[in-house]
Amino acid sequence: MRKFLLPEGEIPRKWLNIAPLLPEPLEPPLDPETKEPVSPEKLLVIFPEPLVMQEVSDQEWIDIPEEVLDILSLWRPTPLHRAKNLEEFLGTPAKIFYKNESVSPPGSHKPNTAVAQAYYNKISGVKRLTTETGAGQWGSALSFATQFFGIECRVYMVRVSYNQKPYRRVLMETWKGEVIPSPSPYTNAGKQFYEKDPEHPGSLGIAISEAIEEAATRDDTKYSLGSVLNHVLLHQTVIGLEAKRQMEEAGFYPDVVIGAVGGGSNFAGLSFPFLADKLRGDKPNLKVLAVEPQACPTLTKGEYRYDFGDTVGLTPLIKMYTLGHDFVPPPIHAGGLRYHGDAPLVCKLYDLGYIDAVAYKQTEVFEAAVTFARTEGIIPAPESSHAIKAAIDEAIRCKETGEEKVILFNLSGHGYFDLSAYDKYLRGELEDS
Amino acid sequence: MRKFLLPEGEIPRKWLNIAPLLPEPLEPPLDPETKEPVSPEKLLVIFPEPLVMQEVSDQEWIDIPEEVLDILSLWRPTPLHRAKNLEEFLGTPAKIFYKNESVSPPGSHKPNTAVAQAYYNKISGVKRLTTETGAGQWGSALSFATQFFGIECRVYMVRVSYNQKPYRRVLMETWKGEVIPSPSPYTNAGKQFYEKDPEHPGSLGIAISEAIEEAATRDDTKYSLGSVLNHVLLHQTVIGLEAKRQMEEAGFYPDVVIGAVGGGSNFAGLSFPFLADKLRGDKPNLKVLAVEPQACPTLTKGEYRYDFGDTVGLTPLIKMYTLGHDFVPPPIHAGGLRYHGDAPLVCKLYDLGYIDAVAYKQTEVFEAAVTFARTEGIIPAPESSHAIKAAIDEAIRCKETGEEKVILFNLSGHGYFDLSAYDKYLRGELEDS
Repeated sequence: MRKFLLPEGEIPRKWLNIAPLLPEPLEPPLDPETKEPVSPEKLLVIFPEPLVMQEVSDQEWIDIPEEVLDILSLWRPTPLHRAKNLEEFLGTPAKIFYKNESVSPPGSHKPNTAVAQAYYNKISGVKRLTTETGAGQWGSALSFATQFFGIECRVYMVRVSYNQKPYRRVLMETWKGEVIPSPSPYTNAGKQFYEKDPEHPGSLGIAISEAIEEAATRDDTKYSLGSVLNHVLLHQTVIGLEAKRQMEEAGFYPDVVIGAVGGGSNFAGLSFPFLADKLRGDKPNLKVLAVEPQACPTLTKGEYRYDFGDTVGLTPLIKMYTLGHDFVPPPIHAGGLRYHGDAPLVCKLYDLGYIDAVAYKQTEVFEAAVTFARTEGIIPAPESSHAIKAAIDEAIRCKETGEEKVILFNLSGHGYFDLSAYDKYLRGELEDS
Repeated sequence: MRKFLLPEGEIPRKWLNIAPLLPEPLEPPLDPETKEPVSPEKLLVIFPEPLVMQEVSDQEWIDIPEEVLDILSLWRPTPLHRAKNLEEFLGTPAKIFYKNESVSPPGSHKPNTAVAQAYYNKISGVKRLTTETGAGQWGSALSFATQFFGIECRVYMVRVSYNQKPYRRVLMETWKGEVIPSPSPYTNAGKQFYEKDPEHPGSLGIAISEAIEEAATRDDTKYSLGSVLNHVLLHQTVIGLEAKRQMEEAGFYPDVVIGAVGGGSNFAGLSFPFLADKLRGDKPNLKVLAVEPQACPTLTKGEYRYDFGDTVGLTPLIKMYTLGHDFVPPPIHAGGLRYHGDAPLVCKLYDLGYIDAVAYKQTEVFEAAVTFARTEGIIPAPESSHAIKAAIDEAIRCKETGEEKVILFNLSGHGYFDLSAYDKYLRGELEDS
């Protein structure tokens, strides 16, 4: 069998919160001025109450509202595939499985949390959401999600991407998102750059500042973030909860679970339900592998300390592995992995030794992507291709040792909007960052 | 329930051949010189024997080879969705269902036949396939399919598309397809245009001639066509066979089955298994609706007569509705519907009154596409959006009459590669062809 589905109606009905399973509590975010823990009240300025409660929750299981399940069922459950062609191509005794999150209409795992966030904002009376987007993956997901709940969505899109990736902009606009090139003249944060240069290329840092400023200064508007925070990772656990049941159906439990890490949301979404077993002591030998680009090696080369979540220093201080909030990674094509830090939950589990990490260069990642496209047929996103590369390396090690390991990775998205990078790779013109 | 799957392993194991169910036999293709029926032997110059046998078969059910099922299972069965949000938005008592063929890796229904054709060529000892592609949908599907069987694939791509749609080219190249801008210097057919103007924009007619010429003059090479022919339509019946069982699971039999018609393959794929019931006399009231663009109104305004299948007159004469083989439709964005004729099987059934047809203008089709994207969340291909427009019109009529009709249409592909057309529509700049 190549594909494992779950009958419709069998989407998980609860999210798994891994925080209460940690052997020691997560360090709280700190106010940069007082160095005291930030109170939930402060977060209510930019997030609605239900999401703030989820952010600090110590409940292990949290009900998924019916209204959210209803929208998720447009594409969930997503298939789990056995990568038989890839196994044959590699000549490995390993069994390779992947969870296919690329089948969502926005093409990635991102709508799993976008739909939940839009819903909780809706029931909290919020009329508008702001967010930022770099390559456009998150902005697409939030535009897609908000339209179902009649919420307006404004996306500050880094101007260089706005100009270079018009199709991502059109995708957001087709889903009624309002896309603003950043820096813009509409916020104080943007204005200082815009007025000096209306064609300023922008940065994710500036775009975040614009989105947060607007949410903080308008009563009808909140802010939405696509990764890093506890509640975002929580919403992504549907991936791993489905995958666990599909792996059971296939008759296996993974020896290795793999995901690419940018902010940590697709990695956590797949791995946390399996990591929960390890934290409970049931699966002591489970290997959980976080894969990052060598161009932005947060876990493998960063320091574990308090740092700002954004570039300009508007957010609370967060305890995480960081390359420094002013670190600017090279412009690799896996735009979703270009984050100086990582989700605090992922960092804590890495620090405690429950997670391993590895970093790859861009060219070897694209080589893996093309191998996957030519065996399994799906064009993977550059971000997801980091997980593919690690899965292939594990499978090749199995070939050397003869181990029949069961490998599971997250295919977090497709690469239909990244074909210019494939073109460069195929022509031998890709920078080996 | 929004989505109806079939457990893996339940892909249909036989294709349905509608030819033997016709109340009178299909007129055979004729040799343009002798006006006598073309012998199967002549077709063997460009097609392998198993496909020629399927082309003229009078067997009602034809086994799908295991090797083909194995590759189809990478994405099949495809989901059947109930378009609940669209129903609510329209306020209709009608029940709207759609079969989602956009989930295949090349993004449309085309690989259903591409995989079968690649397989039969493989077992017939063919080493290379040639084909033509306009917008790139078919070329992508054949590149995708041939890589699984180790067959080389050369795609003659109309030069203007080659230059304007680089992402489609990259998609084919990632799947190992060799993409040649047409007219090329590699064939006599291409040379006469290429030598006068190396930047000649090309046409589908020239590209077909190049692909056929190469297949006819090289022993290791055959030609592959993505629509029109009986065996192509046969391979697409997996769509409707799955949909019938999924509709049963949902508890309904459709009153109206709708598909867009270019050459006829996605339309036939969905509708033939239902039309078979009508031909057998079991469902006399079933309405089957073919939807075409007003810019290329083959069924609604064409003549039913013998005509060439290609523009330059290399093919046999085919009995079909035609606008004339030299008809050049305006450059609408639904490139897959710009064909002067239609599949003979579809034309025969239309002539006999088993099928209705309707034609729409480009702007109203994009309006329907955006309505669909904003209710059901999926960005449809411009081709598929013709079916959506017809489904919406049926549902609105039900609102007026109070009828609770069950409507089923084919979402034959996604629109990720057509976002420039959406951009034009959203800006009010789309030509109303």
